Amino acid sequence: MKIKSLVTLKDFRIVKSWLNSTYKTIKFGRICTESLPERQTVLNLNKTINWRSLGHSFIFLFLSHATLAQKKPVEYVNPFIGTTNYGTTNPGAQVPQGLMNVSPFNVMGSSLNKFNKDAQWWSTPYEYNNKFFTGFSHVNLSGVGCPDMGSLLLMPTTGRLDVDYRNYGSTYKNESAAPGYYTNFLEKYGVKTEATATLRTGISRFTFPKGKSHILLNLGEGLTNETGATMRFVNDREIEGSKLLGSFCYVNNQAVYPIYFVLRLSKKPSEKGYWKFQKQGEVWENDWNKDAGKYKVFTAYHNEMSGDDIGAYLSFETSENEQVEVQVGVSFVSIENARQNLDQEQPKGGFDQIRLAASKRWNEDLSKIEVEGGTEDQKTVFYTALYHALIHPNILQDVNGQYPAMETRQTLKTSGNRYTVFSLWDTYRNVQPLMSLLFPDRQTEMIRSMIDIYKESGWMPKWELYGRESYTMDGDPAIPVIVDAWMKGIRDYDHEAAYEAFYKSATTIDSTNKIRPDNADYVKYGYVPLRAKFDNSVSHSIEYFLADWNLSQFAASLGKKEDAKMFAERAKGYKHYYSKEYGTFRPILPDGKFLTPFDPLQGANFEPNPGFHEGNAWNYTFAIPHDIAGLVKLMGGKRNFVEKLQATFDKGYFDVTNEPDMLYPHIFSEIEGEEWRTQKLVTEILETHFKNAPGGIPGNDDTGTMSTWASMNMMGIYPLCPGRPEYTVVTPVFDKVTIHLDAKYHHGKDKLIIRRDRKGDAGFINGISIDGKKVKGFKISHHDLVNSNEIVITTGNR
Amino acid sequence: MKIKSLVTLKDFRIVKSWLNSTYKTIKFGRICTESLPERQTVLNLNKTINWRSLGHSFIFLFLSHATLAQKKPVEYVNPFIGTTNYGTTNPGAQVPQGLMNVSPFNVMGSSLNKFNKDAQWWSTPYEYNNKFFTGFSHVNLSGVGCPDMGSLLLMPTTGRLDVDYRNYGSTYKNESAAPGYYTNFLEKYGVKTEATATLRTGISRFTFPKGKSHILLNLGEGLTNETGATMRFVNDREIEGSKLLGSFCYVNNQAVYPIYFVLRLSKKPSEKGYWKFQKQGEVWENDWNKDAGKYKVFTAYHNEMSGDDIGAYLSFETSENEQVEVQVGVSFVSIENARQNLDQEQPKGGFDQIRLAASKRWNEDLSKIEVEGGTEDQKTVFYTALYHALIHPNILQDVNGQYPAMETRQTLKTSGNRYTVFSLWDTYRNVQPLMSLLFPDRQTEMIRSMIDIYKESGWMPKWELYGRESYTMDGDPAIPVIVDAWMKGIRDYDHEAAYEAFYKSATTIDSTNKIRPDNADYVKYGYVPLRAKFDNSVSHSIEYFLADWNLSQFAASLGKKEDAKMFAERAKGYKHYYSKEYGTFRPILPDGKFLTPFDPLQGANFEPNPGFHEGNAWNYTFAIPHDIAGLVKLMGGKRNFVEKLQATFDKGYFDVTNEPDMLYPHIFSEIEGEEWRTQKLVTEILETHFKNAPGGIPGNDDTGTMSTWASMNMMGIYPLCPGRPEYTVVTPVFDKVTIHLDAKYHHGKDKLIIRRDRKGDAGFINGISIDGKKVKGFKISHHDLVNSNEIVITTGNR
Repeated sequence: MKIKSLVTLKDFRIVKSWLNSTYKTIKFGRICTESLPERQTVLNLNKTINWRSLGHSFIFLFLSHATLAQKKPVEYVNPFIGTTNYGTTNPGAQVPQGLMNVSPFNVMGSSLNKFNKDAQWWSTPYEYNNKFFTGFSHVNLSGVGCPDMGSLLLMPTTGRLDVDYRNYGSTYKNESAAPGYYTNFLEKYGVKTEATATLRTGISRFTFPKGKSHILLNLGEGLTNETGATMRFVNDREIEGSKLLGSFCYVNNQAVYPIYFVLRLSKKPSEKGYWKFQKQGEVWENDWNKDAGKYKVFTAYHNEMSGDDIGAYLSFETSENEQVEVQVGVSFVSIENARQNLDQEQPKGGFDQIRLAASKRWNEDLSKIEVEGGTEDQKTVFYTALYHALIHPNILQDVNGQYPAMETRQTLKTSGNRYTVFSLWDTYRNVQPLMSLLFPDRQTEMIRSMIDIYKESGWMPKWELYGRESYTMDGDPAIPVIVDAWMKGIRDYDHEAAYEAFYKSATTIDSTNKIRPDNADYVKYGYVPLRAKFDNSVSHSIEYFLADWNLSQFAASLGKKEDAKMFAERAKGYKHYYSKEYGTFRPILPDGKFLTPFDPLQGANFEPNPGFHEGNAWNYTFAIPHDIAGLVKLMGGKRNFVEKLQATFDKGYFDVTNEPDMLYPHIFSEIEGEEWRTQKLVTEILETHFKNAPGGIPGNDDTGTMSTWASMNMMGIYPLCPGRPEYTVVTPVFDKVTIHLDAKYHHGKDKLIIRRDRKGDAGFINGISIDGKKVKGFKISHHDLVNSNEIVITTGNR
Repeated sequence: MKIKSLVTLKDFRIVKSWLNSTYKTIKFGRICTESLPERQTVLNLNKTINWRSLGHSFIFLFLSHATLAQKKPVEYVNPFIGTTNYGTTNPGAQVPQGLMNVSPFNVMGSSLNKFNKDAQWWSTPYEYNNKFFTGFSHVNLSGVGCPDMGSLLLMPTTGRLDVDYRNYGSTYKNESAAPGYYTNFLEKYGVKTEATATLRTGISRFTFPKGKSHILLNLGEGLTNETGATMRFVNDREIEGSKLLGSFCYVNNQAVYPIYFVLRLSKKPSEKGYWKFQKQGEVWENDWNKDAGKYKVFTAYHNEMSGDDIGAYLSFETSENEQVEVQVGVSFVSIENARQNLDQEQPKGGFDQIRLAASKRWNEDLSKIEVEGGTEDQKTVFYTALYHALIHPNILQDVNGQYPAMETRQTLKTSGNRYTVFSLWDTYRNVQPLMSLLFPDRQTEMIRSMIDIYKESGWMPKWELYGRESYTMDGDPAIPVIVDAWMKGIRDYDHEAAYEAFYKSATTIDSTNKIRPDNADYVKYGYVPLRAKFDNSVSHSIEYFLADWNLSQFAASLGKKEDAKMFAERAKGYKHYYSKEYGTFRPILPDGKFLTPFDPLQGANFEPNPGFHEGNAWNYTFAIPHDIAGLVKLMGGKRNFVEKLQATFDKGYFDVTNEPDMLYPHIFSEIEGEEWRTQKLVTEILETHFKNAPGGIPGNDDTGTMSTWASMNMMGIYPLCPGRPEYTVVTPVFDKVTIHLDAKYHHGKDKLIIRRDRKGDAGFINGISIDGKKVKGFKISHHDLVNSNEIVITTGNR
């Protein structure tokens, strides 16, 4: 089994399965070949890491620590982490939870780019090892596995005007990035590019050589699957327009939405115009139309330009090192709002000031956690992971509070923040729980946004993107997000509406159920039988079990005893799928019999796999965090269970890149006496897969989920089961972790410390104490955590 | 020589020559084969028409006259005349000089259409013999030879929604049209369609059967060479948007302009959405994107939709015979103005009322001339010709007076009418002179528009189209237009600016001269030498000679004696081109020698032809109306001259469809004793080529020029030489022609009568009298004409 290949095409499989379930034949072989780098064999974790040697690096750490004490959290972030190895993060400039991201775009136009959006499935504007830069894209997704957005491409060039990106792109050097800032130097043109951002606007600064210079705005290219844009010159320094985006993952081809923009220049261009690709007509027509099959340049037209593949050019006479700044404001409501966003967030332009403000904002957020100890690289991995967790969900509303209502796109107004980009199947596992811990206000507004989405469209979000539901991935993930927060005391929202929404998706059994398409089966049988050759029936059900367990907790909390009982009962439905013969979950046919023949390893390397989404049976069999005890019993007791779970690691069945497997290491901590395995595995995985390097995230970051797996484990606490307000305690990477709490959620208490007390070289946990009181076991409740002043985790040999 | 083939591809040659002059090789053979109907041999006029038999039809005429006396002029118009045989008129609904024309569009999408815009050069939305209707196009050109406009296609359908025009088009029956009205019945859907118009708006009425009905707005297709549109649903009943048009004839590919529109429905649709053609991606991408290579239908999106090939659908549940009206307002300034135009011109909708008003407007204008005598067909030919002359130029400004300034497209405001669509190389010959006679106010505003075009852009119009100069055809045609009117006493405009503009184009000898690109040569040598293998040097010069003669008249009138002398001298430059050897004009090489070898017949059937544009040497050799005496002398005296001119007819060198030849028949009237030839030829040509039939115009109507040749000759007066306020008197078709004059231009005098006094069967003119006083010769001055009460033309045998 190849981890890297699983990582690589993880999100291919999202779509693959969907397509499979509609019986469409896909040529996976070719995609595979084109998009995969050289495959590497999986590391057998037990063999490749010398566990005992880890202590040495800690010694080095202490020595080097003092000299670096002054570094601020923001200075530790390396925005290039995750920008190769299919991490799909980008080093673009943005602010926390900002709608705007200005990213270098280097995934088209040249064979210098190994990864090309037009030659393979590609989901991110930037690849670290690519070479050919074709501009800054405005508003990008971080860590996703499907292409969308990545548009409004802004490129500086010099010399003769050329509007074909295959020609005007450039190699670059002197690349660097920090939170809220990116820069490089274009070798072809001798132009320095820089970008920074506010919440809803970007600003680029281009330092030109003397001579004829150009700035190109390309609305024809981008990552999104949709095409079509319109724009016009408002005056000598301003362009306004809109472009269609959407069809994320191609699952819901109606999930499209427009982005509106206003672009403003610091300098009046000496010439300006548009270009548009002209389709080829019949041969006779091409004879007359000299522009056929080419980019036609419009030099004397400044009214509306609309089309599939259009752009605008702005030409200048520049002096040596002359800087031209380009501000871009966007909105998902209107051009007017985009202009208002720009006016309010960049009242005076000023690149350096905006860059400074962005850096400051990041440092504020990142400083919620202060870490001491650990290597510089570990701090970088940690703070970069935290940085990645603060990108999505991001705000949707404009400065005036307006936002497009879910699905209807009616313009509504919010007084708080309206969030978007809810990749909930991913984030319910750790990103949203982390938000509850660090930013309960933000979490509250995210939940309010989810409830408003329900109120506007009739359904909770699943994989919501800018006011459209993409229906990507499985389950009913809004439930664990909100119930987890509820259980942690974050309750300032319309919880009755939330319950109503949850009840609706959990009980609607006709085809109007947009969240649980197979709910009729699920409700009838307690599981979803396999009805299409390659459907995701088991994966769907596994998500429903957890959601229903959460819903039962919620119902109980609200005094709805009957509901609580019903949903708790449903949550045990996983047992239907357990095949004693194979020791794994196994699809069930409509006649109630297990699928035969059956191969629990099927599903690797993009094999179509009945019942399971993006993985094989092993990747799902332990994903029942809400009833590990039941699972243990089902699998024949602790000994069998531990052996089987350990085997997934030993045999390479564990997939670090797939969300259902994320909790596998922590499950050992549910079995008394086996907690050391969790500690060992987590440390090994962190060491092996999370690095201060562009490839330092194992596969799609999934809007911060992969990163947050790292950051929380590095802090020493990880939430095994969303909805259960409790953390598995693991070996902290740092000696001291100070978590700054939001005092108003904690009776005025505003911080807590997790301290690692090293009693030996190794990292096994020998004991845990809260404010001096010994804790039994290796878990700590959210309540105890946030009410503690200091948690001491004593580590040493086993 | 084949008249029909010359007709057919006349305007091909416009472009051909341009391309030739840039040395581009064109595959004419194939175009020719594809676009030509079966060729017919030319009629030898002397042989095919029995001149003496004409009297019989006149007898029939008198018998039938009384019974039809009540018919109004508007009732005589047959909008189908010119809709085949490459007349390129359309039967669409419009009002006189209206910006809006709503035409049936039947030139794409099916092999049922013999003439298909996508398979050949095609310049009109409608062909009489085509069968497959794909909607009403809004804003169309009449009688032109290059494709443009013909967009905003509105189509009713029923049943299952299909947005592909190749599928949704329909055959039709029950087609009829009248000025301001068109209707047909779609056989595929059982839908009756109707259209009418105001100045700037159209309204369509669709009578549906019971069931599911749709109205489709296609912005992707149309005649124009440009692509790209944007639109959005404003509310349940309104769509607004814009579309790019332009690159008329491909001569100036920068001559593009947007049309803005607002569409309003009488009934709220039950469903609505868009479509957009999705380009094919790579094979792997097409596997994921089920819409690749197809029209994707957007069912849940109503914000901006932009792209190359987009449309909107509106679906209804209709009861039997339910009518849905669709109003379309347009503007060339803005969407807001399009809405204002619609609001003001169709305050209450009401199809029948608008149709009635349009018919009334037409009748008012057509009643400027009342005719008695002649057959019903002749009246139809006459009033339809007059109708065609009142289509272009048309107004450009919106109801609020705003219009886009020439070239800059800055929004300006006019208090009067701002005209556009100035096909001046055609219309200076007769359409504009007719306007001076019938509508001097309108002519004044057209001239003011031309002068404003100069003021806005620095140059007079040449072939102006919606605020863009297309640079189609040759010469300096604004000069004869304005000078002709000036000489007829129409002088209420900034004549100093006009003179300044004329002087500029006549004397600028560098490359900034946009009207006379070869003026340096012309000024230096007195003619333009052949500098590119297939340039139009002789054709250009012939136009300059006439323009300069006009300019000399104008200068003299303004007291600019030196200028008058200089331009008068230039006007004689045609003599350089005369080759005694061949008896025709002949291109001159830069070394001053005639082009050798030389074939005066070269230029037929799309042969590239050095020096001559759209024709051969014969088609230009007599086109010196301002100096027939000089030409006679050049050609060796009257006898030689008459023989040679007669030979052009006898040998088939005369091309009735080409503007420079239009005056050939009338030249005989400049030679004492030969006037009978004019009378005979004009009568023969009218009988042969101008008919009450779809093919009743010989080739492109050229924005009314071909029609006006007919109508003026039918009245008995034709302007041989623009700039000389004089008419050649020819045999009137009618017994009595009453011309209603604008009294304020004629000292209160408001009409005159041209009466034909038949003294014998034949149509030769035996004498002419003005108010009882015998006139010497066969000409009448404009002054004498408009001051007369009754002109009697006595006809009989020769």
